[in-house]
Amino acid sequence: MALSIYEVSIPVFIRSFGNLQAILDKALAQSAADGIDPQTLVDARLAPDMLPLAGQIQRASDTAKGAGARLAGVDNPSFPDTETTFAELKARIDRTVEFLKSIPPEAFEGSETKSISMRNGAVQLDGRTYLLGHALPNFFFHVTTAYAILRHKGIAVGKQDYLGSL
Amino acid sequence: MALSIYEVSIPVFIRSFGNLQAILDKALAQSAADGIDPQTLVDARLAPDMLPLAGQIQRASDTAKGAGARLAGVDNPSFPDTETTFAELKARIDRTVEFLKSIPPEAFEGSETKSISMRNGAVQLDGRTYLLGHALPNFFFHVTTAYAILRHKGIAVGKQDYLGSL
Repeated sequence: MALSIYEVSIPVFIRSFGNLQAILDKALAQSAADGIDPQTLVDARLAPDMLPLAGQIQRASDTAKGAGARLAGVDNPSFPDTETTFAELKARIDRTVEFLKSIPPEAFEGSETKSISMRNGAVQLDGRTYLLGHALPNFFFHVTTAYAILRHKGIAVGKQDYLGSL
Repeated sequence: MALSIYEVSIPVFIRSFGNLQAILDKALAQSAADGIDPQTLVDARLAPDMLPLAGQIQRASDTAKGAGARLAGVDNPSFPDTETTFAELKARIDRTVEFLKSIPPEAFEGSETKSISMRNGAVQLDGRTYLLGHALPNFFFHVTTAYAILRHKGIAVGKQDYLGSL
């Protein structure tokens, strides 16, 4: 008995997106209470050459849906990066989770040794290396940075919100 | 064929610590070149109530060694949080990696269903839930936040440094 590629990817992404939605809800609630324009949060970044909150969420979405599509061998839906509000970012997360839930777990069978093409074919990795060395670290990078941007802007969330309850 | 608990934990941690060491080296080199006191980086944080760089690295170390020790059922070495310089933080990472490498992969066999005790016994999780729902997200949280602190302070590193080469 061991871990399937499916359980190390899709439920992990879905869980983290659920936590991120709750964090965004808290940020919206605090914005309303404190008279902060939520737009300043959507556009906030930690360094001039880092992506703002919106971009971090879009990249988390792309990383999760790209991993699901590549590993399972299904079409990767294109989500254009048009989100500019909390409501649109939350809808992007919902759409991403809906796609992840639509992939049958059986489609991941054997994907640990499957060749995954990245950067328009410039890089080829087997499924396990792609998931463990790229997709998971990259996914958590963007979710954590989204959280960190909100903390940096004074939103009162904590690590427990990021981890969620188990 | 699937993924073992070992390969989803220990090599993932070791790889990420290697990337983090290279990021710290770049931060040190840039500090020297630009006349920045590295101490300001060690003490930097993204919010007044978040841990500084030193604390982020100490928590990444604790998360990785705690996961290795709990899953494999070996003693968790105590590393007191005394690091206050880049050299000491880099040595803490080296010591952590050395411990992770010392655990035999066979010790992780069957740990996906093993009961893992957290918060002094207040929480019990099976090994797979502990790893996928707590240890991995928490580990990447602290490594990403360490990186983000350096980016926020103007250190010229990029996502590729965080991901490393595959």
